[in-house]
Amino acid sequence: VRLLGVMVSIKEDIFSAIFSPRSIAVIGASANGENTGAGYFRALVQAGFKGRLFPVSQGGGQLLGYQVHRDVRMLPEGLDYCIVAVPATQVPDVIDSCAHQKVKVVQIYTAGFAENGAIGQALQLEILERARKGDIRIIGPNCMGISCPAVNIPFGTMEIVAETGPVSFLSQSGGLTGDMILLGVERGIRFSKAVSFGNGCDLDLHEFLDFLANDNETEIIGAYVEDVKYGRRLMQQLRNLRGKKPVVLCKGGMTEPGTRATFSHTGSLTLSPHRWSGALAQAGAISVDSLEALGDALLIFQQLRSRVGRKVALVSGLSGGGGGVGVMASDTCSRAGLIVPQFSIETQEKLQHLLPAVGVIVQNPVDLGGRAGAEELLTSCLKSCLSDSQIDLMIVDLHVGKLASTAGEEKVRDISSLLIKIAQSMTKPIVVVAKPGLSPQLCLEVQQKLAKNGLAVFPSMGQAARALALFYLWREL
Amino acid sequence: VRLLGVMVSIKEDIFSAIFSPRSIAVIGASANGENTGAGYFRALVQAGFKGRLFPVSQGGGQLLGYQVHRDVRMLPEGLDYCIVAVPATQVPDVIDSCAHQKVKVVQIYTAGFAENGAIGQALQLEILERARKGDIRIIGPNCMGISCPAVNIPFGTMEIVAETGPVSFLSQSGGLTGDMILLGVERGIRFSKAVSFGNGCDLDLHEFLDFLANDNETEIIGAYVEDVKYGRRLMQQLRNLRGKKPVVLCKGGMTEPGTRATFSHTGSLTLSPHRWSGALAQAGAISVDSLEALGDALLIFQQLRSRVGRKVALVSGLSGGGGGVGVMASDTCSRAGLIVPQFSIETQEKLQHLLPAVGVIVQNPVDLGGRAGAEELLTSCLKSCLSDSQIDLMIVDLHVGKLASTAGEEKVRDISSLLIKIAQSMTKPIVVVAKPGLSPQLCLEVQQKLAKNGLAVFPSMGQAARALALFYLWREL
Repeated sequence: VRLLGVMVSIKEDIFSAIFSPRSIAVIGASANGENTGAGYFRALVQAGFKGRLFPVSQGGGQLLGYQVHRDVRMLPEGLDYCIVAVPATQVPDVIDSCAHQKVKVVQIYTAGFAENGAIGQALQLEILERARKGDIRIIGPNCMGISCPAVNIPFGTMEIVAETGPVSFLSQSGGLTGDMILLGVERGIRFSKAVSFGNGCDLDLHEFLDFLANDNETEIIGAYVEDVKYGRRLMQQLRNLRGKKPVVLCKGGMTEPGTRATFSHTGSLTLSPHRWSGALAQAGAISVDSLEALGDALLIFQQLRSRVGRKVALVSGLSGGGGGVGVMASDTCSRAGLIVPQFSIETQEKLQHLLPAVGVIVQNPVDLGGRAGAEELLTSCLKSCLSDSQIDLMIVDLHVGKLASTAGEEKVRDISSLLIKIAQSMTKPIVVVAKPGLSPQLCLEVQQKLAKNGLAVFPSMGQAARALALFYLWREL
Repeated sequence: VRLLGVMVSIKEDIFSAIFSPRSIAVIGASANGENTGAGYFRALVQAGFKGRLFPVSQGGGQLLGYQVHRDVRMLPEGLDYCIVAVPATQVPDVIDSCAHQKVKVVQIYTAGFAENGAIGQALQLEILERARKGDIRIIGPNCMGISCPAVNIPFGTMEIVAETGPVSFLSQSGGLTGDMILLGVERGIRFSKAVSFGNGCDLDLHEFLDFLANDNETEIIGAYVEDVKYGRRLMQQLRNLRGKKPVVLCKGGMTEPGTRATFSHTGSLTLSPHRWSGALAQAGAISVDSLEALGDALLIFQQLRSRVGRKVALVSGLSGGGGGVGVMASDTCSRAGLIVPQFSIETQEKLQHLLPAVGVIVQNPVDLGGRAGAEELLTSCLKSCLSDSQIDLMIVDLHVGKLASTAGEEKVRDISSLLIKIAQSMTKPIVVVAKPGLSPQLCLEVQQKLAKNGLAVFPSMGQAARALALFYLWREL
C-alpha cells in the first residue's frame, strides 16, 4: 500500500503545515456550537491561535463571530491544515474537496474506520487512496490530532493548553494524549509538540519520530504505541536517537486482554510483545508500563539534563517524625539502584551542630525531626547535605498536608520558596516528594510552583526513585 | 533481660488500660501550652476523650481549665495510663513516682534512649528495670503512643482523629503511624487501634500482635517494623492468624542504607532481610515495600471481606477517550494476575444497544467514549457490565479532573453518587480509580464519599491492581 519512496520524500513544509500552520479550517464546526467540530474551533479561538481560522458546516451561519462556510470548496486555496469532524461516510468526499482546494494536511477526528470492522477498513483504504491522489497527508483517522503550545494550538477540544517546553509526545490514543497534557499541566511537564495519530493510516509513529529527531525544539520524546508497523525501522530510529534525545515508550497491548482491547481501539494487531523492553534497551530507549511512569520519566529527563551521579541525600522530617520515612526512603532508593552514602564526618558534625541531638538523624538519611522551622537553619541544613562531596543530588520529602496542619499553609509556601532559592544557588539538583494529605489544593499549588522553577515533584518516594532509575539506565544504554 | 513468664502473663486489664483507659495523665504538660506534653493534652481534650484527664508539670498553673499538678505523686492512685514527655534524664524518677501511684501503663514519648548510643541504652535498661520492679508496663520510649478512635483518643498531638473501623496498625515509627492515620482519613481506611511503640523496650510488636489476634474489634492488621526481636515467635503468631485476619507487614531496613537508618531511628539492629517476604508468605501474611502499598492493601482488605473472584470488568471513558486507558488497564490488571474476560455475547449486545457503535468499546475493557452522560444510561451500562456471569468485580476509571473540566463538578458528584447506588444494589464489588488532574480538592471529596460508602478508591490503576493482587495472594496463602 505504501511505498518507501513516499515515506522518505516528506517535504519539510508538511511539518510546518502541521506544527506552525498559517491557516486552519475545521470541517464540521456548526454555528450552534454544539458538535465536536465547533469544540475544536472554540478551543483554537480561546487559545489565541494566531493564524487564519475557518469554520465549515453545511448549515452555514456564524460561529464566535466567524462566517461558517457551507462547503470546503468555498475556502481559499492552499490552506495548511484541516480538521475533519464529520460522519465517517462523508469523509471521502471531504478529502476530495480538500484536494481540490490544495489543502496540505488533513487531520481526521472521525472514528469508525479500521478499528470498526471490515466496512471501516475499506473506508480507511478509500480515504488513503484519495489523499494520495490529491497530494494530501493524513493524520488519523480516529484521532485527536496535534497540540503545539508555542503557536497556541490546543489539544482537540481541551481548554487548557500545555506550557511550552522540551518534551514532545506521540500517541495512538487521543485520550491518553489528553491525559498526558493534563498530567503535564498538573506536574510541570512542558511540551513542544503533542500528536495523537490514532489509526495512523498515513502519517504515523515513524514519520513523526523522524521529524522529532531533527526538531530543534524537541529534546525529549515520549510515546504511547499500540502497534508498531515497522519494528526494524523503529529500532533503527531509536538507535539514531541514542545518547542524543531520550525516548520513553509506553506500549499498550502487552498482554492478551490488552491486545484484544487495542484491536477495538485503534484497529491494531500488535506484534508479539516478547522482549519488547529488551529490544528497546538495546536500541537505547526506555520502556515503561503506565502513563504515570511515562509522566514521571519525562519529568525527570526534563529536569536532569546534564550528567548527574546517583549518590542521593535523603531529607525528611520537615514536619517532624521523619525517621521511618527516611528508613523507607533509603530502602526504596537502594532497591532502585540509587546510592545512599553516609555523609562525611564534616557534614555530620555540621548537622549535629545545627540540630539538637535527640530526635534527629544526621548520617543520611536525614531526619530533621521537625526542628528546622527557622528559614536560616533549614537553609543551612539543606545546603550542608547537598554540598557533601559524597552527594550528587538531594530528595526532600515534603508532606504538604502534615506540614500544613502543624505549621500552617504559609509555612508550606515558605519552605517551597526556600527550596527553589537553594536549588538556584547550587549546581546539584533537588527533587521533591510532595504528599497531599488533606491539603491537595495546596499540594498542587506548591508542586506547580516548584516545577515552574525546575524542581521535579513526585507524589511518592517510589515514583521518584523509579524515575531516577530510568534516568540512570538511559545514561548507561 | 526479659522472661517468657513475664511476656505471657500480661493481664487482660493491661490492654483495657491502654485502649479504653478510665484516666490519662500527661506528665510534662505545662500550663503555657507550648511543649509536646501540652500538645498531647490539648489533643485529648479537643478529641473529647471521655475519661478523666490530668496534666502534670513542675510549674503548676492551669491548662485548658485543668489544674496542672506539680508532681506525679499528687495524682490519684491507680491511674490507667500516663503519657511521659519530659527530658530523658528525668524519666527514671517519673517511672518510680508512677509506680508509687500504682499507674498501670506508662507511654514514654521522650527520645534519647537505645537509639542514641551507649548512655541512652543504659538509660533504657534503667527505666525498664524500675518499671518491672514497680509493676508498670511501658510503651516506648521514643514513640508517639496509641490512638483509639472509638474512645476519642487521638494520635499524639494530631488534631485529626481517624474514623472507627476494622483496621489496627502497629508501628515502630511514630511518624509513619501518623502518616498512616492521615492516609486513612484521606483514603477512607477506618481504624480500631493504632500503636507507635518506638524502641519497644517492654510492650512491643509481639505483645500487641497477641492482643490484636483476639481483639474482636480488629479484623485486619497492618504493621511497620524495623527489627523483629523474636523471628520464630512472629512467624508462629502469623501462622495463628492465617486465614482469620489478614496481616500486612512493611519492613524498613531491608537494604544496607535502610538498616543503617533504622539503627539511628529506633536503635534496631535488623536481622538479615533474606527471604523475609518468603517467610511471611509461608506464615500466611503479606509483605509490602512502602507505606502507600500498605495503605492500598488495608483499603482493599477493608472492602473485600468475602470471597471475591479475580475476573474484572474494566470501565473507562466516562469523560471520553477511554480507549487507551482501557488498553493500559487491561495490561496492568493482567500483569498483576487479574483476569479480564470478554463479556458474554448477551452483555456485548446489551451494551451495543445502549451505546452508539462508533468510539466506544464493549467487549471488556469498556470504553464509554464519553457517551454515557445520562444517569439512567450510565446505570444500565455499568449494571450490565457487573451483572455479566463472567465478571466478579468492576473497576471504574474516573478521571475527576478531566470530567470536571468537560462536564462540570456537579457531574462528578452525580456520577460518584450513582456509583454508590449501583454498588449498594449489587452484590459484586466496585473499585474506583480516581485521578485528580487539576481538581484535587474535588477528587478528595469524591474519594472520601465513595470510601465512606464502602468503595475503595485508588489514585492509579497500578495501585488498584497491586492491592487486588495482594488480596488474591492472601486468599491463597
